[in-house]
Amino acid sequence: MNLLVKNIVHEGRKTNIYIEGNTIKSVGGKSGIKDDLVIDGEGKAAIPGLVNTHTHAAMTLMRGYADDLELHDWLENYIWPIEAKLNPDDVYWGAKLACLEMIKSGTTCINDMYWHPLSTAKAVEEADLRGVINGVFIDLHDPEKAREQKSVNKKLFTEFKQFPDRIMYSLGPHAIYTVSEESLIWVRDFAEKNNLLIHFHLSETRKENEDFVKNKGVRPIPYLEKIGFLGPNVVCAHAVWVTKGELKTLGKYDVKIVHNPTSNMKLATGGVMPYVEMKEAGLTVALGTDGCSSNNNLDMFEEMKFAALLQKAHRWDQTVLPAKEALEMATEQGAKALGLNAGKIEEGRLADIVLIDLKRPELTPHYNLASDLVYSANGSCVDTVICDGKVLMQGGLVEGEEEILEKVGVVAKELISR
Amino acid sequence: MNLLVKNIVHEGRKTNIYIEGNTIKSVGGKSGIKDDLVIDGEGKAAIPGLVNTHTHAAMTLMRGYADDLELHDWLENYIWPIEAKLNPDDVYWGAKLACLEMIKSGTTCINDMYWHPLSTAKAVEEADLRGVINGVFIDLHDPEKAREQKSVNKKLFTEFKQFPDRIMYSLGPHAIYTVSEESLIWVRDFAEKNNLLIHFHLSETRKENEDFVKNKGVRPIPYLEKIGFLGPNVVCAHAVWVTKGELKTLGKYDVKIVHNPTSNMKLATGGVMPYVEMKEAGLTVALGTDGCSSNNNLDMFEEMKFAALLQKAHRWDQTVLPAKEALEMATEQGAKALGLNAGKIEEGRLADIVLIDLKRPELTPHYNLASDLVYSANGSCVDTVICDGKVLMQGGLVEGEEEILEKVGVVAKELISR
Repeated sequence: MNLLVKNIVHEGRKTNIYIEGNTIKSVGGKSGIKDDLVIDGEGKAAIPGLVNTHTHAAMTLMRGYADDLELHDWLENYIWPIEAKLNPDDVYWGAKLACLEMIKSGTTCINDMYWHPLSTAKAVEEADLRGVINGVFIDLHDPEKAREQKSVNKKLFTEFKQFPDRIMYSLGPHAIYTVSEESLIWVRDFAEKNNLLIHFHLSETRKENEDFVKNKGVRPIPYLEKIGFLGPNVVCAHAVWVTKGELKTLGKYDVKIVHNPTSNMKLATGGVMPYVEMKEAGLTVALGTDGCSSNNNLDMFEEMKFAALLQKAHRWDQTVLPAKEALEMATEQGAKALGLNAGKIEEGRLADIVLIDLKRPELTPHYNLASDLVYSANGSCVDTVICDGKVLMQGGLVEGEEEILEKVGVVAKELISR
Repeated sequence: MNLLVKNIVHEGRKTNIYIEGNTIKSVGGKSGIKDDLVIDGEGKAAIPGLVNTHTHAAMTLMRGYADDLELHDWLENYIWPIEAKLNPDDVYWGAKLACLEMIKSGTTCINDMYWHPLSTAKAVEEADLRGVINGVFIDLHDPEKAREQKSVNKKLFTEFKQFPDRIMYSLGPHAIYTVSEESLIWVRDFAEKNNLLIHFHLSETRKENEDFVKNKGVRPIPYLEKIGFLGPNVVCAHAVWVTKGELKTLGKYDVKIVHNPTSNMKLATGGVMPYVEMKEAGLTVALGTDGCSSNNNLDMFEEMKFAALLQKAHRWDQTVLPAKEALEMATEQGAKALGLNAGKIEEGRLADIVLIDLKRPELTPHYNLASDLVYSANGSCVDTVICDGKVLMQGGLVEGEEEILEKVGVVAKELISR
């Protein structure tokens, strides 16, 4: 299908965007293609679809279920007991809700780690979104569990071939404290052989680093380097408790970083991700919401604001992480972290595009679109969403919205009382 | 006029709310009144109208005009030059835009400090909102300016009598470093005599405290106590750089505090307002967005989230400032700070009520409304706004919206190029 978005503001001027199939064919210039569909962009601006580079989509099911609790109380008495009861159908509906929320707030691609990944993949496929999806690889240093996890992952890798190209399988070793060395090495080898991404939690809390040093006599990053785990296909969420020297190591292997400022603040994990030092080390830093138990939404506009303001507040410096850079974290850097040819509106890129409704009080007057989007907007300013060349939303409404909300209400109620 | 809101969720159960004139007549029970207007609350929840206890409404005109700049560069080269050119008509349109944004995001009352307060009052009156409004009282320690400011304020006090009761005049001595001791004492006396609130910036930055100590040999709060300035009618914005002992002093005089977490973070003023210690000192702590140059919106939902998360992150404690308390800061505490009989939905209170549309992905499922509102919602979840018993918005749309946006666009463009 060919799609023309005409009279649309992009990078400060009015232009036309032509899409052929799933690719941006041209920006500006005259139309030479047959347009199957024309969207009038009058009063709107185009930005790349937002990339949520670290989340657990189906945790929408636990949104608001347990907040304001001490970390261990929260995990042990609320989150883990519910997760132990989750079945594929729960995850499917949780992910359906997440996809709906993401479309409505302008996210076109997620990097997801959760139980029952086939359910998430199905939901993402049905929503016509793009996704890198993995299960949670946890062996708790138990060789039996490790064997089982490897076999599950091999099977999933094959099963994911049923999905279209925009649904990508990846490996999700949970964290250094939940996955054995042998499994980490297996993950690395399997990923390398099959050209897969690895999605990993790295140094989120000070405690996990300290515990690791106590057990192994070495900090996590030097350890990961030693076992050869680090590489450009490793996407690390959080990375709050890292030293300057360790950032150099991560930079050497072109490891990708995902910042989750809202989750870090809400979970009170302490410290602030050293964004400035990461940039100095040449690292790609993308942005993620984390799951809805620790955020509690999937709104990447809000996440951009939290990212920019947390750095400014932490460093007593208004100039750090300016709006344009925050917007790039959520678009270009996100796509780069996932190895996607997306995140920018230019010829040859994947057609993941979001149209912003400019006729809104919080976006008036119009001095600087990046400032307005990062510091004033929220996800509700999204009017139109195009992913992989397909129009998923126009006028802020998604087909079948109400049915998903109703069904998730029933599923969640049943899950909690199960 | 009598108004019935029926089948509405309030504090976890379905009920009816009856409003007579500008007052809540009853919550629950049977209708005994003649209803001129009935609103069906099915699928919605009622919360008190949000109170934005520190803002500069007309600064919407500068939204996105200057961000990510060093504080002095920002003030001296961007904000002050524009403010020097502001005329009453500019302020009127800036405040019109602010009122539109506030209604759409569920704020029913503001505490405003800005130039040309009659323009702001006119805009607030036309929008049918509630407001405590003052001009900026600045004399820069110049006796001539002090005389002029006193005369201006006396005149404004009289002129404000043209407005309905819900538009209240107050005094706005800007800050300790811009207002002379003699003027502060005059403000205190004039406020006491005429039963007015005093709206003040207190210890926002470390620098202002240090400069004051250098000049006066005493910190601001002991100084304000000494000159007899402190009292229950003093509403202090920011109060970031205060000691535990000073909080005791503020508590002794029942001074009201307004937290502005987003502004503090964005302006990178350093430190974090000591919320826990303020509560321990028995202080009323309300919430404000500050102006749109330093936020950049007027969304009190976002402000609640920033408030809760900033405290948790700062104190490494997930349990601090839980959702319910954040919601109270934006409602009950706000009303208390301004001496209003509002901020709660109960018999006898002013009928300032907001209806939340619950059929939204980010508010699904429904475990805990306070959690959902503080951690997941934004202003766009507001469906209906009632202020002083009058319905200002239903279905998320305000009459005349587009005209205001268009006009402000023209006014802002002309202002910048003036």
